[in-house]
Amino acid sequence: MKNLNFTSFADVPDLQEWIKIAQNFKENPLSHESFGKGKTLGLLFFNPSLRTRLSTQKAAMNLGMNVMIMNVQQDGWTIEMEDGTVMNQNSQEHIKEAAGVISQYCDIIGVRTFASLADKKADYEEKVLQKFIKYALVPVISLESATAHPLQSFADILTIEEFKAKTNLTKKSKVVLSWSPHPKALPQAVPNSFVNWVKNTDSELVIACPKGFELNPEYTKGVSIVHNQEEAFKDADFIYAKNWSSFSDENEIYGKIGQNLEHWIVDEAKMKLTNNAKFMHCLPVRRNVVVADEVIDSQNSVVLEQAHNRVYSAQTVLFNILEQKFGYPMPY
Amino acid sequence: MKNLNFTSFADVPDLQEWIKIAQNFKENPLSHESFGKGKTLGLLFFNPSLRTRLSTQKAAMNLGMNVMIMNVQQDGWTIEMEDGTVMNQNSQEHIKEAAGVISQYCDIIGVRTFASLADKKADYEEKVLQKFIKYALVPVISLESATAHPLQSFADILTIEEFKAKTNLTKKSKVVLSWSPHPKALPQAVPNSFVNWVKNTDSELVIACPKGFELNPEYTKGVSIVHNQEEAFKDADFIYAKNWSSFSDENEIYGKIGQNLEHWIVDEAKMKLTNNAKFMHCLPVRRNVVVADEVIDSQNSVVLEQAHNRVYSAQTVLFNILEQKFGYPMPY
Amino acid sequence: MKNLNFTSFADVPDLQEWIKIAQNFKENPLSHESFGKGKTLGLLFFNPSLRTRLSTQKAAMNLGMNVMIMNVQQDGWTIEMEDGTVMNQNSQEHIKEAAGVISQYCDIIGVRTFASLADKKADYEEKVLQKFIKYALVPVISLESATAHPLQSFADILTIEEFKAKTNLTKKSKVVLSWSPHPKALPQAVPNSFVNWVKNTDSELVIACPKGFELNPEYTKGVSIVHNQEEAFKDADFIYAKNWSSFSDENEIYGKIGQNLEHWIVDEAKMKLTNNAKFMHCLPVRRNVVVADEVIDSQNSVVLEQAHNRVYSAQTVLFNILEQKFGYPMPY
Repeated sequence: MKNLNFTSFADVPDLQEWIKIAQNFKENPLSHESFGKGKTLGLLFFNPSLRTRLSTQKAAMNLGMNVMIMNVQQDGWTIEMEDGTVMNQNSQEHIKEAAGVISQYCDIIGVRTFASLADKKADYEEKVLQKFIKYALVPVISLESATAHPLQSFADILTIEEFKAKTNLTKKSKVVLSWSPHPKALPQAVPNSFVNWVKNTDSELVIACPKGFELNPEYTKGVSIVHNQEEAFKDADFIYAKNWSSFSDENEIYGKIGQNLEHWIVDEAKMKLTNNAKFMHCLPVRRNVVVADEVIDSQNSVVLEQAHNRVYSAQTVLFNILEQKFGYPMPY
Repeated sequence: MKNLNFTSFADVPDLQEWIKIAQNFKENPLSHESFGKGKTLGLLFFNPSLRTRLSTQKAAMNLGMNVMIMNVQQDGWTIEMEDGTVMNQNSQEHIKEAAGVISQYCDIIGVRTFASLADKKADYEEKVLQKFIKYALVPVISLESATAHPLQSFADILTIEEFKAKTNLTKKSKVVLSWSPHPKALPQAVPNSFVNWVKNTDSELVIACPKGFELNPEYTKGVSIVHNQEEAFKDADFIYAKNWSSFSDENEIYGKIGQNLEHWIVDEAKMKLTNNAKFMHCLPVRRNVVVADEVIDSQNSVVLEQAHNRVYSAQTVLFNILEQKFGYPMPY
Repeated sequence: MKNLNFTSFADVPDLQEWIKIAQNFKENPLSHESFGKGKTLGLLFFNPSLRTRLSTQKAAMNLGMNVMIMNVQQDGWTIEMEDGTVMNQNSQEHIKEAAGVISQYCDIIGVRTFASLADKKADYEEKVLQKFIKYALVPVISLESATAHPLQSFADILTIEEFKAKTNLTKKSKVVLSWSPHPKALPQAVPNSFVNWVKNTDSELVIACPKGFELNPEYTKGVSIVHNQEEAFKDADFIYAKNWSSFSDENEIYGKIGQNLEHWIVDEAKMKLTNNAKFMHCLPVRRNVVVADEVIDSQNSVVLEQAHNRVYSAQTVLFNILEQKFGYPMPY
């Protein structure tokens, strides 16, 4: 049987079909309100969450599923990730039992586990997520992992499609992923994912970033990367601002923030270079650091629509797993 | 369209009608068990909560609504309240996005945000609540704000009406709000609200408090204020004990506790001065500080009934918003 | 009317009947999916919980109940347990109001309150649980108390019955409760309960523990206790590993861990002495301290099945209370 996990674009069988399913859910969120009746979604947070927590709950409830939430750190629940350890220190439970036990109570498990930004190899091997998948006995969906945030990217694609349709673009749309300043080091999960999904649409993708902030070439292969932000913005239809820390491992700078790069902020002057582009960001966003008030407060900002579409991206993913796992019509 | 927020007595169109609706819900809590089907209530706590959390959840579930809860502080989610800030410090998200995003997932949002007791002007301007209302895209209900706790006061009114009926009072009932000692400084929200609601009933209201603990005159205008507790208790039908910190801004004492005022405790001797009065408190209560065991443990204590009525005050408020927002019969 | 609390084996009217009910729920979890409609289960955690939290929620949802969860410590809610105290210190609310108020919102309340391991008398008097029961106005179920964990033990019994049937044991089954090493002092609740329940089945029960780690004789009266682990394991059909701290009060060692007892680990060599025994543990478990990887990873390990059966033990208990309290058919 096909692997029913959802952790990256690779788990999407047919993007165009999924976009249609999501658009139908947006039009009628309760069209399948009993589809997941008697089924339980467990949400396991190793890291904080607002949008993902609420939108995924909402998606599950729209399908009639029950939701149970576990906050790993708040509950002081320390999980051993290594095999063969003599567990006489702090870890109370091995990932093998943790994943196995939650699988007894949940039909689908969502897991959020951020990058450490300290160990590039472990991050890019998705150590925690992969261990969890290995030991879980039910499908696992990523609520943002070390290297990817596919529920966000799917919502971003839905937003781009929606506004392409609304603005009757006749040309191929140009999407710019623009690196942004930020006071704290952030993972590369959102931009990695965004690149991965947009590459698989008919949009033209350009990445604008300072030198040294190129993303993992495995993701960006074939994508245009420019270091001149103004040049990138020219004739763009969508500007997606996002900070990420360095991917480079030269001089041990993996996971480090940029210095003296405040001028990479997205402001009105830069937006004027675009083709009246929509402004996108996954949120939360640092105002007047990542983006100027004048841009995020403008008519062209679609950040709340992106947040809204998180419901339908999650609902589509859950629907797909339920459909494949339990067949249709559902037993209840 | 009429503003559908619920943050104070001013948002009650017709108190007598609401009392009837609430009494009906008390008699038959599930009379409208599908009224809110497919609708979601979000509860956002900037401060801790037990009664409000449980009773409002229960009220929503009685109407068939889904409930999602966010604990702002526990999740380490720091929100920027000022406009125009360069957000390069601790705040991760601006109230504008926070309120906007939650509005994407919830049909009604409840917000708890206590007084700072450090900045009287900001507290009485209801800075946080008003910002939230400004940026929310759906109706907002107060789960206790800096200056008011209307869900509590509505439940208090229900309790007074209930016991007035049970005891067949033939005279106009006398309600005494009695300031109480407390080891920690507490906001004025509960007493402000209580005064505001009781003023609008046919009861006689008297406030008993030490000199210097007069509440905001905007609330107490026209209400009898006495500094002799024994005098106030004479012939009272309801004694409502509650501590609050100083409202006065002389010598910068706003938000300060009282000193050497332990004798303001409500004890049996004082209760004997009343007309066999019911004892009320919003809870939680410090026993033998605010009230003597002998009083709160007596037959005349109705504190649990007040807590119980919180369900029906919240259910009435939610019902009213759903009815006005989505019409009747409901779409689902 | 019969006391409807569930805090120990003494609250089970007929174990064989309950086993049948639980087995039916395991076969068809949603057979009574509307039985608890409109009823609310409150779960009150004075201590952390994963399995109990999830499995009890799931059980309630299988019966159509609503669930509300309160984390006492996370919410910084400090409860006064003593009567007559002048509450001018840290405690914000008396257990009397806490239990009384939650009873206004919940039809059944689950309480988790661990042993202090500092005050043997208070622990074995079940001070917190009994206070809660005293002041609650609705049935209370133990989610693990100072001296017992009956929901776990019931699930353990279900697991033993299940595997006895599967393995077609013709002889009386031999169950060994084997003390295990552990780096932290743990309560005696799980082993106390296990002994209490297994004693009331037709299995032969043997307790293996180091000298000084004998459990409370009130529980173990009539049960064989041996200090030679290898001897105990001979011909055993079920090995239940569990650490517990000292019950002895000699030299004030109540609640202390064992020293230099690492060799009490359950390993493959010891399991070879058994009659191909199933390995049991309530989880969470410290691998390679309590049990060697080779044992818990073997085909004979039934720890996940124990966790799974927690749903049906809780569902049976909730069903029984609902049935007795509200009659059948249910009002809704």
